[in-house]
Amino acid sequence: MSSKWNGASIYTPKTTDGAARRGEVRTDHGVFQTPAFMPVGTSGAVKAMTAQDLESAGAEIILGNTYHLYLRPGHETVAALGGLAKFNGWNRPTLTDSGGYQVFSLKDRTKLSDDGVEFSSHIDGSRHMFTPERVMEIEHALGADIIMAFDHCVAYPATESDAADAVRRTYDWAKRSLERHTELSRTEDSHRRLLFGIVQGSTYNNLRTVSAEQIVSLDFPGNAIGGLSVGETKDEMEDSLAHTIELLPKEKPRYLMGVGYPEDILMAVSHGVDMFDCVLPTRNARTGQVFTSTGPLVYRNAENARDERPLDENCTCRVCQRYSRAYIRHLYNQSEITGMVLASYHSIYFYQELMRGIRASIEKGEFAQFRKDFLARYFSSVNT
Amino acid sequence: MSSKWNGASIYTPKTTDGAARRGEVRTDHGVFQTPAFMPVGTSGAVKAMTAQDLESAGAEIILGNTYHLYLRPGHETVAALGGLAKFNGWNRPTLTDSGGYQVFSLKDRTKLSDDGVEFSSHIDGSRHMFTPERVMEIEHALGADIIMAFDHCVAYPATESDAADAVRRTYDWAKRSLERHTELSRTEDSHRRLLFGIVQGSTYNNLRTVSAEQIVSLDFPGNAIGGLSVGETKDEMEDSLAHTIELLPKEKPRYLMGVGYPEDILMAVSHGVDMFDCVLPTRNARTGQVFTSTGPLVYRNAENARDERPLDENCTCRVCQRYSRAYIRHLYNQSEITGMVLASYHSIYFYQELMRGIRASIEKGEFAQFRKDFLARYFSSVNT
Repeated sequence: MSSKWNGASIYTPKTTDGAARRGEVRTDHGVFQTPAFMPVGTSGAVKAMTAQDLESAGAEIILGNTYHLYLRPGHETVAALGGLAKFNGWNRPTLTDSGGYQVFSLKDRTKLSDDGVEFSSHIDGSRHMFTPERVMEIEHALGADIIMAFDHCVAYPATESDAADAVRRTYDWAKRSLERHTELSRTEDSHRRLLFGIVQGSTYNNLRTVSAEQIVSLDFPGNAIGGLSVGETKDEMEDSLAHTIELLPKEKPRYLMGVGYPEDILMAVSHGVDMFDCVLPTRNARTGQVFTSTGPLVYRNAENARDERPLDENCTCRVCQRYSRAYIRHLYNQSEITGMVLASYHSIYFYQELMRGIRASIEKGEFAQFRKDFLARYFSSVNT
Repeated sequence: MSSKWNGASIYTPKTTDGAARRGEVRTDHGVFQTPAFMPVGTSGAVKAMTAQDLESAGAEIILGNTYHLYLRPGHETVAALGGLAKFNGWNRPTLTDSGGYQVFSLKDRTKLSDDGVEFSSHIDGSRHMFTPERVMEIEHALGADIIMAFDHCVAYPATESDAADAVRRTYDWAKRSLERHTELSRTEDSHRRLLFGIVQGSTYNNLRTVSAEQIVSLDFPGNAIGGLSVGETKDEMEDSLAHTIELLPKEKPRYLMGVGYPEDILMAVSHGVDMFDCVLPTRNARTGQVFTSTGPLVYRNAENARDERPLDENCTCRVCQRYSRAYIRHLYNQSEITGMVLASYHSIYFYQELMRGIRASIEKGEFAQFRKDFLARYFSSVNT
């Protein structure tokens, strides 16, 4: 294993179906199949899930948030404990984001300059500075398989001028990220961190073109599309995605950050996206809503009080084999942890089952039909 | 299956070792091995555990709290959903307590009479009345395999006069419980509810004698010792237990309610107790302390921040195979549900492993040595 990416593609294509792609990505912690959905383990755990639960649900790669892990327990602690995959008991592929999305979400606690972002911790108000170099040092210490360049993600809506500024800064920071990453890779342990670049540009396709060309020119082993799913309409999201993805090399994995709903994932796969992450399945599960084959189900609603059916009658997960909506609703009402565990497991399984269906349908050249059938059932309003 | 206990013993002895007993108890939901530890599923779930987790840890019977289930979701809802074992996805033996311990714990919200106890819900302050008859109706609706007679558990310390009063009332209520239970058993579904009596008497052995003779005279299929582990010293507990258990028939299971710490369980087994329940393993796990072979470990302590060892280096549970103290401490500090799940699983597994060790040692006639070895390691202060 080489500590630096040697230029060989980490992406192996299997087959395509229209623009939809079926492939796999190789990392030092093993291979994951694409299109892939990565559950989000903000502070080193996917909330209410154990590593064994994630395996059992079929996840092959999970994400950790650099911002959260930097603050607690600290990147040096994670490094001392063997890196993220070992720390969280997962021992399989992991990815860390750049922290950019989080620090820009802090808004009035941040001070932006071309050097980086100064921000206050949401935990104790202490002041910190993220620069591209610092983020690379943190992500290298966290030691995920895939790490993200520090980028500037603007809120939606953004003026064209602000978006252009963020594109310029994102390119500058990508170059600085790559430089520091290359230095760090020379000296550290043999574990290979794969640095992905991020394309910004808000919903301005002219800026997306500029950003894509800049990021692609840096020859990262994978490329991400950032700054979508931040409040724009679904049509705007598809328009920006369709425009941008055409500019990204086909021989490298393409990651749409922070997306999304099942219908968004199906749309993005149809344009050739390989990787997704989103907190929706776990966050919504904890607040009383799960995803099902017939659409979102607000299981906390009173109408489920004596409903003996599983969360999803078409689901093969172990929760749906064993527990009723009535029981899981009762646990929610009693703030029982077990309820959050069961609901989260179901929704993560549902997302992984969606990805399994997507992958199988691409292999058979039937993705368009799969998408159509899925959406017809999903939007049949059975649950509403 | 007969709905009424037909007088045949539900307890099958296997072997004894001194006063320690190895046997099994038969219920309509299957057999459980004794001595048995029953995790407490207050509101229909053992907190932070799934039914699958409980199976995997080796639990064979779990407990539900009548008081909590009566208030939420209501005994009629549990009945409509197929009874407790089906409701909570467990489908194995269950036991419900009488609610007496909970309502007497409410103290100033209760109004006691010989008829029963009037109390205010801890949830919404609404007024309710538990009588022996009412509790039987509720427990029959909940539909556990073993149900407990409504008793009067006094706080510790109690005057002899108050304790005598509670003994008298407990006997009266036991008779009324039995009468209503017998009526209900005649008319309802075929599922057999086994009604156990409860001996009270605080730490007054003369009262324990009276109470035991009264309760035994009613010929329940099993007998429980209540009113211990409520604040008395360990010597007082052992003295009362040793005195009382001699008065209970050997051909029926003997259940020491609400006990306890590993050392208490070992002590009680040495006197011939067959069944235990306690919230300690799960409650403490959620607040930062787990049980280990070398004693209680306060895993939340800062000294574990970079400790790569498992919670218990001698433990074979799946949590100890995979996660470090440092990780679980980090999750505790971040209030991550996953941390509570992992710590609870370990401690429930630890208790079940203790019971497996106890049962195996009785079979080999080596219980005294097992107890001695366990305690020597447990109190070796490695963790403190």
